[in-house]
Amino acid sequence: MPPQDPRFDTISPLNKGLGPMDHALRATDIPSLNWNLLREDLSLPSAVLYRDKLLHNQQWMRHFIDAYGVKLAPHGKTTMAPQLFQLQLDGGAWGITLATAHQTLVAHAHGVRRVLMANQLIGRPNMAIIANLLRDPAFEFYCLVDSADQVNQLGEYFRSQSQQLNVLIELGVPNGRAGVRDEQQLLSVLTALDRWPDAVRLCGIEVYEGVLDNEPAIRQFLQRACSVTNQLIAEKRFAQKPILTGAGSAWFDIVAEEFTAARFSAPVEIVLRPGCYLTHDVGSYRRAHQRMRQNNPVAHQMNTTLETALHIWAYVQSIPEPTRAIIGMGRRDAAFDSGLPVPALQYRPSANAAANAPSATPAHWTITKLMDQHAYLEIAPGDDLHIGDMLAFDICHPCLTFDKWRTLPILDANYNVVDLVQTFF
Amino acid sequence: MPPQDPRFDTISPLNKGLGPMDHALRATDIPSLNWNLLREDLSLPSAVLYRDKLLHNQQWMRHFIDAYGVKLAPHGKTTMAPQLFQLQLDGGAWGITLATAHQTLVAHAHGVRRVLMANQLIGRPNMAIIANLLRDPAFEFYCLVDSADQVNQLGEYFRSQSQQLNVLIELGVPNGRAGVRDEQQLLSVLTALDRWPDAVRLCGIEVYEGVLDNEPAIRQFLQRACSVTNQLIAEKRFAQKPILTGAGSAWFDIVAEEFTAARFSAPVEIVLRPGCYLTHDVGSYRRAHQRMRQNNPVAHQMNTTLETALHIWAYVQSIPEPTRAIIGMGRRDAAFDSGLPVPALQYRPSANAAANAPSATPAHWTITKLMDQHAYLEIAPGDDLHIGDMLAFDICHPCLTFDKWRTLPILDANYNVVDLVQTFF
Repeated sequence: MPPQDPRFDTISPLNKGLGPMDHALRATDIPSLNWNLLREDLSLPSAVLYRDKLLHNQQWMRHFIDAYGVKLAPHGKTTMAPQLFQLQLDGGAWGITLATAHQTLVAHAHGVRRVLMANQLIGRPNMAIIANLLRDPAFEFYCLVDSADQVNQLGEYFRSQSQQLNVLIELGVPNGRAGVRDEQQLLSVLTALDRWPDAVRLCGIEVYEGVLDNEPAIRQFLQRACSVTNQLIAEKRFAQKPILTGAGSAWFDIVAEEFTAARFSAPVEIVLRPGCYLTHDVGSYRRAHQRMRQNNPVAHQMNTTLETALHIWAYVQSIPEPTRAIIGMGRRDAAFDSGLPVPALQYRPSANAAANAPSATPAHWTITKLMDQHAYLEIAPGDDLHIGDMLAFDICHPCLTFDKWRTLPILDANYNVVDLVQTFF
Repeated sequence: MPPQDPRFDTISPLNKGLGPMDHALRATDIPSLNWNLLREDLSLPSAVLYRDKLLHNQQWMRHFIDAYGVKLAPHGKTTMAPQLFQLQLDGGAWGITLATAHQTLVAHAHGVRRVLMANQLIGRPNMAIIANLLRDPAFEFYCLVDSADQVNQLGEYFRSQSQQLNVLIELGVPNGRAGVRDEQQLLSVLTALDRWPDAVRLCGIEVYEGVLDNEPAIRQFLQRACSVTNQLIAEKRFAQKPILTGAGSAWFDIVAEEFTAARFSAPVEIVLRPGCYLTHDVGSYRRAHQRMRQNNPVAHQMNTTLETALHIWAYVQSIPEPTRAIIGMGRRDAAFDSGLPVPALQYRPSANAAANAPSATPAHWTITKLMDQHAYLEIAPGDDLHIGDMLAFDICHPCLTFDKWRTLPILDANYNVVDLVQTFF
């Protein structure tokens, strides 16, 4: 993994899920502590990443993107971990997508020099953060506009700073999130842009197809985006080779298909923004990935799949009834917004850690409830489960798992801690 | 607010929801920056606390506890903010309740010297954290046991350290969380305790009545706890004046009623553990508080109520349809596990901030959906709402809101930032 920015890489001894630390350390000092998960060096619960699987997923996406000849700007809000941003950039990403001025500040502070802020930039303090970053001539930044009011607020602010802001017009759908719904709103935005040519620079078109939930509607929406792009090319509205960008983590195959199949009257930079591929999950993204492998020719042809690279490890703390174990892991540790954690591995600590390895958990073990600090695990009477056993759980949504952890150890195949990832939520 | 421990009070310029910072600052330096929310000094979204309301809630609980003559050990997992722990201790709290070894480490590092860990202590690394803290002779610590296996694991570890660990027996209910269910399990724990008199010291009885959802069942459970306490007093099982503790944030009135009404054959230290009273909310705890004010004689007699002391402020970023506004706040910012955020205040920034004050939002404005970084606000056509307006939202669960923020500004009545609270999740 790439090293952390030395200005921000101090690891507090007060973070959860780590091994013993007498005092604050540099992230780069952590491997020399020789922590090993199976040797019980980490205070559980702990969220850990598997190095080999991260690298595998990085490569999977590189192949996918290269096969389509499109650019990748993975959404960084998922992990907010600059070391993982760097891993993604090292894997060929064109830039990093982010959602807020604060997230952009974090990325820039860690060396990211091209950010697609797939969101409207609102409010003077947030504009000030971006204006300040734009004083770095190496920093390339795009954000979204979808109303004349918003364009005027940006125009006024950035004109006052004698700066020029790159924007993409966000297209939206009825009953969806932000984004211009129709021709009239589009015209209103374009008219407003005409007022601030010195301050606001139109660079492309953006959609987030994930507000829709079925493929035909998504394809139609994407085709509209291609058509609007062509329309604005014809009207010479773009100040540069236009960017056309879409794709969350669930439908990036469809976006790749539609955007690369479209005929544009001038060259267009196609940028996809999936974020969750790096850790993957066993919830909605696994289902999406199964669909892709079945239907998308590139994903189908690749003989590998994305792998889950994130586990929460936790102790069995009580087995008060024959069919119920209480696990020391809860909503403060794992996402629960699109499915509860799923048992994956069991390990019984012993004096001789080398003697055994984690084994797959029985298929009938199920988390039935998550409280703040506890999970209810349903088991069968007589199952071989002890208090003090360590269990690894797959998670169903990486975004809301990452934001529960300030540091995540990275493990090698032998469960040695070889690195530490910091998050900046 | 009490000052932060100087070893841990460095505020990174990369935290969200703050004003502009050129470099890391001490928390104590923040007030001198003269940030004001209405003057748009803070990057929104921002979670803020209101000083006056925190102090009001602190006093409300002090009166309640004093009226019953019981002790308070507020659950610190809610905020994980040592400055707020100190505020609670300054308000007469006997100690702080926590859920994990990590949380205990954080509290001790910030000067808390009496912790009731209302949870089982499991796993060698977690036992090592506590063993290390127990080397501070001023540190008083209690945790829970509910099985012979667990007692034996603690006994073995703490005997090897030549240390003595204070424990309470957790009682549980069928289909509930941890805790001994019946006489047989209780006897099994007591028998195990007899093996480790030098290492494990029985100090009381613990229940968490919040696993039940109706008052009659809760009263019955609490009466069982009183009866078990008397039984173990008669058997001379306790190594000290026994602690009898219960009460989450929803039923602490009932616990106070039952525990103070019980007749014990020896003096008992009654300890209540509500955590959410300090910030309160507009979800389940408001409903619980309404019930208390109606039914509990002490709460009824007090002429004041708990007040919501926590708001998320966010910008209106898009109004793409006449009945829909998109707000720059999402699941990364606010709890959504027991109700979505509720609009409370609206403020339109202007050059003359002193000219106006936030006003109450119309009752028909409702958050209908929360995505990672966005909220859908349902409005009526023609409502006076602009892009760039600032909205304050009440929240429905403080626990899962606090853990989205590393720093929360504290505001005075004029929205000046007078302090900053750090969290340590």
